[in-house]
Amino acid sequence: MVEPDDSPTGPGSPGTAGRVSEIDRVKAFSDAVIAIVITLLVLELRVPEHEPGGLLRGLREEWPSYLAFVVSFIYIGVIWLNHHALLRLIRGMTLGLNWINLGILFGAVIIPFPTTVLASALGHGSDNYDRRVAVALYALSAMLMSAPWMVFFGYLRRHPELLAPGVTRRYVRTQTPRPLTGLVLYGLSGLLGWFVNPVLGLVGIIVMILYHALTSEGLREGPLGRLFGRTPT
Amino acid sequence: MVEPDDSPTGPGSPGTAGRVSEIDRVKAFSDAVIAIVITLLVLELRVPEHEPGGLLRGLREEWPSYLAFVVSFIYIGVIWLNHHALLRLIRGMTLGLNWINLGILFGAVIIPFPTTVLASALGHGSDNYDRRVAVALYALSAMLMSAPWMVFFGYLRRHPELLAPGVTRRYVRTQTPRPLTGLVLYGLSGLLGWFVNPVLGLVGIIVMILYHALTSEGLREGPLGRLFGRTPT
Amino acid sequence: MVEPDDSPTGPGSPGTAGRVSEIDRVKAFSDAVIAIVITLLVLELRVPEHEPGGLLRGLREEWPSYLAFVVSFIYIGVIWLNHHALLRLIRGMTLGLNWINLGILFGAVIIPFPTTVLASALGHGSDNYDRRVAVALYALSAMLMSAPWMVFFGYLRRHPELLAPGVTRRYVRTQTPRPLTGLVLYGLSGLLGWFVNPVLGLVGIIVMILYHALTSEGLREGPLGRLFGRTPT
Amino acid sequence: MVEPDDSPTGPGSPGTAGRVSEIDRVKAFSDAVIAIVITLLVLELRVPEHEPGGLLRGLREEWPSYLAFVVSFIYIGVIWLNHHALLRLIRGMTLGLNWINLGILFGAVIIPFPTTVLASALGHGSDNYDRRVAVALYALSAMLMSAPWMVFFGYLRRHPELLAPGVTRRYVRTQTPRPLTGLVLYGLSGLLGWFVNPVLGLVGIIVMILYHALTSEGLREGPLGRLFGRTPT
Repeated sequence: MVEPDDSPTGPGSPGTAGRVSEIDRVKAFSDAVIAIVITLLVLELRVPEHEPGGLLRGLREEWPSYLAFVVSFIYIGVIWLNHHALLRLIRGMTLGLNWINLGILFGAVIIPFPTTVLASALGHGSDNYDRRVAVALYALSAMLMSAPWMVFFGYLRRHPELLAPGVTRRYVRTQTPRPLTGLVLYGLSGLLGWFVNPVLGLVGIIVMILYHALTSEGLREGPLGRLFGRTPT
Repeated sequence: MVEPDDSPTGPGSPGTAGRVSEIDRVKAFSDAVIAIVITLLVLELRVPEHEPGGLLRGLREEWPSYLAFVVSFIYIGVIWLNHHALLRLIRGMTLGLNWINLGILFGAVIIPFPTTVLASALGHGSDNYDRRVAVALYALSAMLMSAPWMVFFGYLRRHPELLAPGVTRRYVRTQTPRPLTGLVLYGLSGLLGWFVNPVLGLVGIIVMILYHALTSEGLREGPLGRLFGRTPT
Repeated sequence: MVEPDDSPTGPGSPGTAGRVSEIDRVKAFSDAVIAIVITLLVLELRVPEHEPGGLLRGLREEWPSYLAFVVSFIYIGVIWLNHHALLRLIRGMTLGLNWINLGILFGAVIIPFPTTVLASALGHGSDNYDRRVAVALYALSAMLMSAPWMVFFGYLRRHPELLAPGVTRRYVRTQTPRPLTGLVLYGLSGLLGWFVNPVLGLVGIIVMILYHALTSEGLREGPLGRLFGRTPT
Repeated sequence: MVEPDDSPTGPGSPGTAGRVSEIDRVKAFSDAVIAIVITLLVLELRVPEHEPGGLLRGLREEWPSYLAFVVSFIYIGVIWLNHHALLRLIRGMTLGLNWINLGILFGAVIIPFPTTVLASALGHGSDNYDRRVAVALYALSAMLMSAPWMVFFGYLRRHPELLAPGVTRRYVRTQTPRPLTGLVLYGLSGLLGWFVNPVLGLVGIIVMILYHALTSEGLREGPLGRLFGRTPT
């Protein structure tokens, strides 16, 4: 939508130097957004309505909220770690990168919504059809989360002048498949949840989140890479 | 209300040097406020009340909430980018600038309120009159958002000693029409929504937000400027 | 409660140097808390329950919420500016200062509560007695806000080695009366609201907030000081 | 779950140097999360439902909310101070440390939930059994909070190369018992609350929080250490 803008600015304006240095402010803003999202999740944990003496039973029946909370907490933690690694790849911002980054933050900000829907659908007052809907919605949100990362890597491949010192084009190319893998596999998990079984779909989503947790340092370098005998090349 | 204060401070006080350097803290505070507002929007996305099996239908009926969420998310993103550019113009804060900045933050902080009102008015339980009210309220909030930017530029024109190194008075003058344009056109959108048709008014508001998104690097430098053949002068 | 601790730490510990430098983290933490509080206020602005066509009327009846919102927004803005000035007085943190600062943040964090109570008491479903209670509660919160500032200044007078370079003991002494003035006058406003008239008490609170807004650069230096012919000495 | 990863990264990646320096971003993220949690607590303070003239009575009946709010505010303040001291021990982050830190933040983020449950159980509509449940839940959360600190210290003992300059292994060893003490004593408080008396259990929890407040500068250096005649060794 927005054409990348890294052209020199006019005389008398704050200039490109200032714009490049503002990556720190983007980091701080993104971190703040992610910190708020990961904390807002707790607002969905509510004291159950209960009769005197019924608190423990009420708390137990809220297990879907706890499950959804833990899954989304880990998921947002993974997003933070990956976002961390992402911004270390670049040496400056452009208007285009700012909007791609806002797209990533959009994906992060909405997570509490599918989380609550999932918690609600796993509890009373919902049937299996609702569960299929909720798992598909969660998978859809995760796909929405993955999509701007692909755009980010594509943008970097077209603008190698934005790469941080020491980051090679080749490294960027090797990272590109990760969001695509995420997009495809979250999509498959959603289809699994919708057409086959919501629990299977949810398991697929959780496995994907753990996969991203283990590879958040990059595809070939994390514990998973070592597990499968891939050494840094 | 508050007279600008950039006079030298008394002996033994922390002094002007410290005050000038505190622009970083203003940036951090403003970023935090904007990050929180953009994230709080998600709290308005609620799980719909539904009967077993009715989750999907309930979610679909919430489309006004999603629309209002996306519009306000982009709007706050635009505000952040513009605020970003704004604070790069100056080299220090004064008490007057602090209060003008708090005015800008006030405009940002209230956005979730007209957003929720709009989402509510577009849904069931509201008629066309409510929609006119909601669109006019959103436009009014956007005008309230634009007003302190005008005050900011006016303040800078009267205090050129606050301009950051490399920022010319001429550059500040060329930026001044932007918030005025916003003020007038948001106002017209509100009137359009109130007197003609709420949907038209809402379209006007969305067009204005996209306009600000495309010009957030400055009026003559962004993609729009290039589109219309304006080169930096 | 907590005895100030600025004794040298044991060998092998991170050491005093590290502790002194961490004032930046205290600033960032305090700013984040204040930024969140000032933003959370908007959550109290709710879409009024209304019949189709009754949105405008419903919004109008919410005026106490808007009034309470604006007053508390300005109040928290004042707190931020003053806190700003406060931390510029010192060159390092101690455990005691950390807890005094947490006391200040406690006063800031609770503000949304008396704000909501006030908005509720000014609306339907409350009588004059409720209004007296709400105004007194707001005044009490403001006193709770002022108290730790007095402790802060008292602590600084006893620990002049913590003063930032260029800040004299004399300057600290001249600032000390400000929180005491606040404490006394918020208290009087509360008593006025309780025993005489809640509206008068509320006006007293608002005047005090504006007084602090105008003197947030220090008692003798702001616009008020100039207005009354006090020049920096 | 996640194997620590501090191996050198592949050529063309941002590299270890960048990763070590990112401790500042971890501090900022952690501070933001803790700042949000400590502020969100206020959302649990609600205007009581009341008849005209019944506001004061309604506010008084909310005392359990105030008590729970104050306890959790101090508790999160303590966590912040301790986390502060914790991150000063290290000179860089690894993937493993990041997940341990996310574990600590998990423990902090959930605190509003047991706080609200406790406030609810101390009020009307709950009996003594509910109170036992609520106190045990709060103690359980506090144990969940303490556990990742133990993992953190254990990780540091196995990776002394991560210690900040001037921090000795011996110092780390002397700090290790603190989270273990917390884990055990919060557990005992929970058992006391469950099997003997919820009020006693709650007192135990509060005493533990105050103990951690007084020792947040380290076990042998704070006011408590001086009280018992322990001098730094």
